[in-house]
Amino acid sequence: MRRISYIEDFTKWREEFSFSIPIRIRFSETDMFGHVNNVSPFIYFEEARIEYLKSVGIFNNDSSNEGIPIVADLQCDYLKQMYFQDSLELYVKASHIGNTSFDIHYMGVNQNDEVCITGRGRIVYINAATGKPLPLKNEIKEKLGVIITR
Amino acid sequence: MRRISYIEDFTKWREEFSFSIPIRIRFSETDMFGHVNNVSPFIYFEEARIEYLKSVGIFNNDSSNEGIPIVADLQCDYLKQMYFQDSLELYVKASHIGNTSFDIHYMGVNQNDEVCITGRGRIVYINAATGKPLPLKNEIKEKLGVIITR
Amino acid sequence: MRRISYIEDFTKWREEFSFSIPIRIRFSETDMFGHVNNVSPFIYFEEARIEYLKSVGIFNNDSSNEGIPIVADLQCDYLKQMYFQDSLELYVKASHIGNTSFDIHYMGVNQNDEVCITGRGRIVYINAATGKPLPLKNEIKEKLGVIITR
Amino acid sequence: MRRISYIEDFTKWREEFSFSIPIRIRFSETDMFGHVNNVSPFIYFEEARIEYLKSVGIFNNDSSNEGIPIVADLQCDYLKQMYFQDSLELYVKASHIGNTSFDIHYMGVNQNDEVCITGRGRIVYINAATGKPLPLKNEIKEKLGVIITR
Repeated sequence: MRRISYIEDFTKWREEFSFSIPIRIRFSETDMFGHVNNVSPFIYFEEARIEYLKSVGIFNNDSSNEGIPIVADLQCDYLKQMYFQDSLELYVKASHIGNTSFDIHYMGVNQNDEVCITGRGRIVYINAATGKPLPLKNEIKEKLGVIITR
Repeated sequence: MRRISYIEDFTKWREEFSFSIPIRIRFSETDMFGHVNNVSPFIYFEEARIEYLKSVGIFNNDSSNEGIPIVADLQCDYLKQMYFQDSLELYVKASHIGNTSFDIHYMGVNQNDEVCITGRGRIVYINAATGKPLPLKNEIKEKLGVIITR
Repeated sequence: MRRISYIEDFTKWREEFSFSIPIRIRFSETDMFGHVNNVSPFIYFEEARIEYLKSVGIFNNDSSNEGIPIVADLQCDYLKQMYFQDSLELYVKASHIGNTSFDIHYMGVNQNDEVCITGRGRIVYINAATGKPLPLKNEIKEKLGVIITR
Repeated sequence: MRRISYIEDFTKWREEFSFSIPIRIRFSETDMFGHVNNVSPFIYFEEARIEYLKSVGIFNNDSSNEGIPIVADLQCDYLKQMYFQDSLELYVKASHIGNTSFDIHYMGVNQNDEVCITGRGRIVYINAATGKPLPLKNEIKEKLGVIITR
């Protein structure tokens, strides 16, 4: 398998995922080359990221003194083509959990248990009003950590 | 040519357009059937509609006592396939101008002067705060009318 | 309720649906106005239409002497805003079944049992090689009819 | 400015771009957070990449013994929010030109000369029939190099 900068040991990396959502590939997300368009994995990452952040408790929190998560960067490695009728399971986990930010790693697996896409991106937790980075509460860090390791 | 419910005389209908914008078809707007996806014309209608409404002065008006335009319905007739490298010109005109609403008609023409798509949809002008229909000012009606007939 | 040209009796029209699929609204399908973008219902119509056509047996049929279904036109009436976390159920049924074509009607209902969108569009069944309209087999007509009336 | 892994000296990196295309942000590419959705930059990268590859002569080449370019990975750093009415110029250049592959770097600049997004991704040149990597011809390597350095 191709070397991917954010994955040291692929088997170990893959085993660390526990959270996932199913992705139903839309027909409009294919392109004239006959398979899923290169842009579409980032749509799937976003779907999975939001569900994950909701599970951790930092998406769409209504209490106004809380922070919001911002995507600082995103990347995707295309390992195998995906097709319209594929059943895709999108896995998500946290990594490199810092004081005000953390990484999210992504893995998309098709119905034949083949990893089609991997990815990662940094989430920065900021104060919505000031735009300044905000420390992640311990309970959130714990949730991010627990979800990784269990 | 196929009968289209909102077009009585196609030659006359086509001649009444004067406002248009060029559309650059995105690669991601094609699909696995090799041409532009059936959803994409509605993206192009939206692009052209917004530019038209801006030209008439009723899009994104900042004065808070003004109304906003709402799309009540939309329809598209697919006359000819469109392809990635096509140059599409999207024409827009107003029609059936009422007291608080009007229709917008759409026509997409490719580089060979072939009409690929036609469409229409009702715009209702409402008070953003109350959601109630709001009478169109005479100056807006005039602009809608002038653009049709010149 | 607003008058919609392709619906005579709304209660009766709604009762005739039996086929549906759940739609998971993608975050990227919202827009800066805070709700689901006006283009997105046509993505949902396409998802539901394909599943319906597969159930009837005329989507992606590999036998090369068979026809393919083509979308001739599409329309959508926007009755109620849809939002990111909404659970949408998209209903589909056939109507006006002719020799080589038929209509598909669409209805999107949210988690509060509110009809947010309705729509319709003509499907023409053609020979993929020649582009000519092809008669629908009786077994397909029956499936289209059965699904309506049961 | 934040540290970006694929940029050593930002001023020098920025100066090396010469090829660009204008991007018209579509309304449907915004999201309910009020600005351009995180997925959309990858649509813009694709638009600019295709135009660049066409200029170099390796996109949609019809001669069947030629190769095709495949996207191996993509990444984007989000430096500044983009908004609906922004005028975005998307710059592209080649980098790390190897025997059968090369990187493309991306930079999106708004109407205030602010860099909103940067990115990169590997392009692998393959034989469309066999899927095997194919050596880039010298004339293509030269075009990739020339466009970087002039």
